[in-house]
Amino acid sequence: MAKEKSIGITAKKADDMPEWYGQVVLKSGLADYAPVKGCMVIRPYGYAIWQKIMDYFNSRLEKIGAENAYFPLFIPESFFKKEAEHAKGFSPEVAWVMNRDESQERLALRPTSETIMYDSYSRWVRSWRDLPLRINQWCNIIRWEVSDVKLFLRSREFLWQEGHCVYETKEQCDRETLMMLDEYEKLCNDLLALPMLKGKKTEKEKFAGALYTTTIEAFMPDGKALQCGTSHNLGQGFAKAFGISYLGKDGKTNTPWQSSWGFSTRLIGAMVMQHSDDKGLVLPPNIAPVQAVIIPIIFEDTKAKVLKKAEEVKDNLKDVRVFLDDRDQYTSGWKFNEWELKGVPVRIEIGPKDVEKDQAIVVRRDTGKKEPVKIADLSKKIKTLLENIQDDLLNKAKKFLKDSIVEAKSWKDFEKVIKNKKIAKALFCGNTDCEDNIKAETEGGNSRCIPFGKEDIKGKCVHCGKEAKFTVYFSKSY
Amino acid sequence: MAKEKSIGITAKKADDMPEWYGQVVLKSGLADYAPVKGCMVIRPYGYAIWQKIMDYFNSRLEKIGAENAYFPLFIPESFFKKEAEHAKGFSPEVAWVMNRDESQERLALRPTSETIMYDSYSRWVRSWRDLPLRINQWCNIIRWEVSDVKLFLRSREFLWQEGHCVYETKEQCDRETLMMLDEYEKLCNDLLALPMLKGKKTEKEKFAGALYTTTIEAFMPDGKALQCGTSHNLGQGFAKAFGISYLGKDGKTNTPWQSSWGFSTRLIGAMVMQHSDDKGLVLPPNIAPVQAVIIPIIFEDTKAKVLKKAEEVKDNLKDVRVFLDDRDQYTSGWKFNEWELKGVPVRIEIGPKDVEKDQAIVVRRDTGKKEPVKIADLSKKIKTLLENIQDDLLNKAKKFLKDSIVEAKSWKDFEKVIKNKKIAKALFCGNTDCEDNIKAETEGGNSRCIPFGKEDIKGKCVHCGKEAKFTVYFSKSY
Repeated sequence: MAKEKSIGITAKKADDMPEWYGQVVLKSGLADYAPVKGCMVIRPYGYAIWQKIMDYFNSRLEKIGAENAYFPLFIPESFFKKEAEHAKGFSPEVAWVMNRDESQERLALRPTSETIMYDSYSRWVRSWRDLPLRINQWCNIIRWEVSDVKLFLRSREFLWQEGHCVYETKEQCDRETLMMLDEYEKLCNDLLALPMLKGKKTEKEKFAGALYTTTIEAFMPDGKALQCGTSHNLGQGFAKAFGISYLGKDGKTNTPWQSSWGFSTRLIGAMVMQHSDDKGLVLPPNIAPVQAVIIPIIFEDTKAKVLKKAEEVKDNLKDVRVFLDDRDQYTSGWKFNEWELKGVPVRIEIGPKDVEKDQAIVVRRDTGKKEPVKIADLSKKIKTLLENIQDDLLNKAKKFLKDSIVEAKSWKDFEKVIKNKKIAKALFCGNTDCEDNIKAETEGGNSRCIPFGKEDIKGKCVHCGKEAKFTVYFSKSY
Repeated sequence: MAKEKSIGITAKKADDMPEWYGQVVLKSGLADYAPVKGCMVIRPYGYAIWQKIMDYFNSRLEKIGAENAYFPLFIPESFFKKEAEHAKGFSPEVAWVMNRDESQERLALRPTSETIMYDSYSRWVRSWRDLPLRINQWCNIIRWEVSDVKLFLRSREFLWQEGHCVYETKEQCDRETLMMLDEYEKLCNDLLALPMLKGKKTEKEKFAGALYTTTIEAFMPDGKALQCGTSHNLGQGFAKAFGISYLGKDGKTNTPWQSSWGFSTRLIGAMVMQHSDDKGLVLPPNIAPVQAVIIPIIFEDTKAKVLKKAEEVKDNLKDVRVFLDDRDQYTSGWKFNEWELKGVPVRIEIGPKDVEKDQAIVVRRDTGKKEPVKIADLSKKIKTLLENIQDDLLNKAKKFLKDSIVEAKSWKDFEKVIKNKKIAKALFCGNTDCEDNIKAETEGGNSRCIPFGKEDIKGKCVHCGKEAKFTVYFSKSY
């Protein structure tokens, strides 16, 4: 009976995280390897999660006044070269279309869309009346340097959203750059139960062409940070390079300020790694495509009675995304394993004895806790339970994050913290050479962000001993 | 005051349809030309329409039991070659990624995804329990042969959905191939107010690799048909080529049947061309991002009173997608033109005299008909009006389609019908050579579809005089 599918996760999260992670993603049906080097297939279960993220974020965009649009996949080579830092930053990652017509310039497959969008913006923005301009696009992105695919985490092609805004003033641009970072944090907290490190990137780690980059970073159970979203104040560099200007209220031609911000399907990977366990996926209720699964325990003589009750329970769970698994071709045991593997937050079992007692057995996926609940109380109970699970997952992850941050006052401390797979909180000079040295000496420990409000600190750099500019979180990373 | 934007459409639909169409799409803000040959930019107003189409169709897919997924943009060359007809059909259209690593095979940018999806299917489908498998994807598609872009109608890159299903039996595959065509027709009718010619494609026009292709076709006011969606029964050819098989209930290994179906952003072009007029876009209410716009007529002394009433009206129109245009920087006259250009179905004007009379002036975009309506009746009136406009647009287009179909009993008749830019309904032998000759002799008249239920006709082919196989609609086309 479809045996291969019922085989669960054979690796342990604590022992072999990469193997465990790959198995969870594959066996829960979130994604699959593609027959193309460096690429993945997002399967329906994984896409349903992405769709929920899109729906949530689209509703936020509407509130913010940002609109969706779609720009070409192809970017002329000359566009890249217009903003020098940007071109330098992306050149190793770019895939090109084969030229049939040698007289035409080379076309890149978008690794990000600043240049192709801002060319249009230069024609669309005329006066202060056209500002602020806030446009978002959902699309596929190509970064060719990846060859060894890690499902959701690294692949040559992935899906993302990228927002690109134009403002009259630096103040407005600063404000909304941070507003979008807050939106990202809220999405990660509320939907995915993922707490975030939040702050500014160092000069070394900022986006190619940006004035500054802000970031949210998750911290994974294997001791590596995972960048989950970035929001950049691009300054006026792109506007100047692409000739975007506007007629101000003052009657003068001005150069506007720009921001861009993005998150990708990588978020799904972060969520999987943070919450899941050795039995498979654990989904936060707010993102789960199925929040509760009803499994009727079928014996031939009581089948009709049990199914009837199961239907009744389903009909009563109106505000819950519920699935009644009444498939004949699988046993109840097989179904238990299947839905555990798929991380459905709550399982509701109804057998003949439960029907007699007018109850159901309710099981939490995250803790395994089981309890009988009277049918009359079920609707209320499930709703409370889903809220509790969401909170508990977030709080557990928050505690893990908090416990992972260790203040490093000396270089010796610092090395130890990184070696112990924790986050080193340390004073840093901000110098890119010094940062390169830190990375080399700690075998990958790198700056994740400068937490906000920690930029005016006094002290010495943890590595070079020169004047420190700010506090920085350092860790290994994906 | 932003004068360039207030300039309306300068071409007439009746005189110069291509120029008129381009101006409507550009000036209403639906789309723009991209700085990349053969490509377009879908602007927020156009993308909002595509989003509505996606939302509607996603809700239908859920009912049908089809799920969304995402497969790679890149398709290995060897995959194309596996199904011979398919490879032949698509080879002129394919763009390739430049090879950095010469040892790797060439990768195409997907012109359609049968091959890359069915490779995965060959691993996912194991037993009858996995069937039917119904997967859809929303993605960008590349067809390189296009160099002269027609916004929404022809471009090197466009957006679409493609559904790919696997069934146990031919009967189920036949049934659902037609079911999806019916879904497409319903979407076009209900959402876009577009009536369709519906039927089967001839051998010459069927999808490369299909057993047969069914199609819906709109007929444009310039006398050209526009293919709006196709649904193919792919037979067992792809399954055999890609090694998809399943263990049947009979314990034997069987080859399944497959279907695929798709529509694209081209639908937006069809809708624009069908309904719009010399003042700009005309949007059917069911698809319009803004269904009613409220324009307060502002004079300094009565401003507060008028705005208050306008807000009140807005709050009362709860089930309508309404926008209150209270922007200070534009005059009422400018706003009238702007929203006419943008095709908003209903305009609601409120001036100081209207406030006194406790009324608003309601104007239909499609007919220009104006009437005063009491504020108390407004909510009901607007809803009725939106329904009426939707119906009227569909009925008008239906009448046009019906009047365009002319039965051609002789070749002389046939030539005249095509020359007159109508649809020739004629008996046809089904022979591809004969069809080629018809196209050549009528300068582009080609078969659009074999209407259902007209396949067992008796008579002679309108062109070659041989035994006819069916009735076929012929016309010029996009």
